[in-house]
Amino acid sequence: MEASLDVVGVGNAIVDVISTVDDEFIVEHDLNRGSMTLIDADRATSLYAAMPPGIEASGGSAANTMAGLASLGSKASYLGKVRDDQLGEVFIHDLRAAGVGFDVQASSEGAPTARCLIQVTPDAERTMNTFLGISAFLSPDDIDESVVASAAITYCEGYLWDMDIAKEAIRGAMAVAADAGRTVSLTLSDAFCVDRHRAEWLDLISDKVDLLFANESEICSLFETDDFDLAAKEIASMAKISALTRSAAGSVVVANGEQIVVPAAPVDHVVDATGAGDLYASGFLHGLANGADLARCAELGGIAAGEIISHIGARPRVDLTDLI
Amino acid sequence: MEASLDVVGVGNAIVDVISTVDDEFIVEHDLNRGSMTLIDADRATSLYAAMPPGIEASGGSAANTMAGLASLGSKASYLGKVRDDQLGEVFIHDLRAAGVGFDVQASSEGAPTARCLIQVTPDAERTMNTFLGISAFLSPDDIDESVVASAAITYCEGYLWDMDIAKEAIRGAMAVAADAGRTVSLTLSDAFCVDRHRAEWLDLISDKVDLLFANESEICSLFETDDFDLAAKEIASMAKISALTRSAAGSVVVANGEQIVVPAAPVDHVVDATGAGDLYASGFLHGLANGADLARCAELGGIAAGEIISHIGARPRVDLTDLI
Repeated sequence: MEASLDVVGVGNAIVDVISTVDDEFIVEHDLNRGSMTLIDADRATSLYAAMPPGIEASGGSAANTMAGLASLGSKASYLGKVRDDQLGEVFIHDLRAAGVGFDVQASSEGAPTARCLIQVTPDAERTMNTFLGISAFLSPDDIDESVVASAAITYCEGYLWDMDIAKEAIRGAMAVAADAGRTVSLTLSDAFCVDRHRAEWLDLISDKVDLLFANESEICSLFETDDFDLAAKEIASMAKISALTRSAAGSVVVANGEQIVVPAAPVDHVVDATGAGDLYASGFLHGLANGADLARCAELGGIAAGEIISHIGARPRVDLTDLI
Repeated sequence: MEASLDVVGVGNAIVDVISTVDDEFIVEHDLNRGSMTLIDADRATSLYAAMPPGIEASGGSAANTMAGLASLGSKASYLGKVRDDQLGEVFIHDLRAAGVGFDVQASSEGAPTARCLIQVTPDAERTMNTFLGISAFLSPDDIDESVVASAAITYCEGYLWDMDIAKEAIRGAMAVAADAGRTVSLTLSDAFCVDRHRAEWLDLISDKVDLLFANESEICSLFETDDFDLAAKEIASMAKISALTRSAAGSVVVANGEQIVVPAAPVDHVVDATGAGDLYASGFLHGLANGADLARCAELGGIAAGEIISHIGARPRVDLTDLI
């Protein structure tokens, strides 16, 4: 059956709280610079109390990717879990206002909507500390199988793998997509996350994943190597297509026994790296959904990532169709 | 007794929800371009649903002014009312993290924390729609008289005048300040607001106000004239000092039978006018609290306003001491 959706994303539904800090803040509060760390409610309270004034903006890796896809003109939907609180209302509003389908009912009980405390340092690097709240309880019941079956591509966030019930939800979504003859995609999300799930993910990628997204440190972590070229060779035999991002060095697409190297889009001034990988995936998936060749997919990824890192926050500020 | 605080601000404690819209949005939704309009909960829900994705940032006119004062190195405190909800938590965090004293307990019952739906148009003008929520219930009980008595200047927001109980709170705060021999300051806040309270405010300014802030349209509205020079003459006999802002044309200080004209600080690119008047007041009050002459006060106001309009949001993004 013809797909009525281009992409459905499954992920942690999160509102970002973004502050600009100096480098000492990262050291003083013992943060994992450039990575995503899960924190509990107490740590979230104490870290927030220590942070400078912030701004709140809807986030969540896969949700950012879907917002980018909608901005590019693709038909995108999202599956994730929020509470019926003020941050949940913000998350739902922003995703729908971006043009992403999101028909999930906010939960009337349970933990609050997830938030990610993000520190942006002067080098534009982001350090993320996530209190998962209710998003950690995404379960197989929250996966609308008809939505998944109707999407040409199902895009899953590696971050979800940290929770057993969410892992089940992802496995279920991937199975539905595969049964419907759709493309299954996974992003590795974070090098520490890869480290926590290496063995399972190596199996998962070999068996179930058609299209893999990873940045340099994630793909190197997957194969426990410092050698990107080696990691790129290893992944070639596992996923049909792998899109590997290398920050300012652009990206490498590994597919059909070949490597396609695509430079990054030029950016005048990098302000905040938050969302760079998410929006690269938007551009790439938009290309793929529209029949572009892989080099063009990677180029579109670079353009969308370039827009996101030029400002604070992980959702597009301009209509991305104007940039392509 | 020596004042232990430079300034205490009294105002509506509000979280801003800021979206960028095109000009048609303003027309289509029948908004009062460039002004502040009070809206009820239903209208807030329907207008928010129509708005593009936004960012949330702490706001509130007098709170912005206090944040600016703290950033300049002054000792500032704030009195206002929030609920113990997520937006209230954001408001409290951001104000304290900015270095402003705010010891008010969040209310465990009543309406939610106030929010202001702000539409920024391509000309950088902001159109504000405020759902006052619990902030409308600021009462004389919420005014900590010892804080007011300890501040060299008490700065009150005209916006508060729309609610009878808040009006009482302001009159009470002004009386405490006057009894302690302190300076009483008022900002007119909005031309429509002036229109609603003209007669009362003419009396109030003559009787109780030492230092008045107003922009061109507000001071013209006060005297029901289109002639700024005429309005500036009228106000001369009413408040000891009046600081009148004229956007790109800078500001005029009226005091001691004289007018001091001060040009605006140069700004490369005006992004969002939200907070310009609030931060002008920060700079001016900082100068006054530190014994600067009135021309320097106005210049400091222009510098602080210039920083705020160069980015989205109404709180400083940089340490303002670096700019002066």
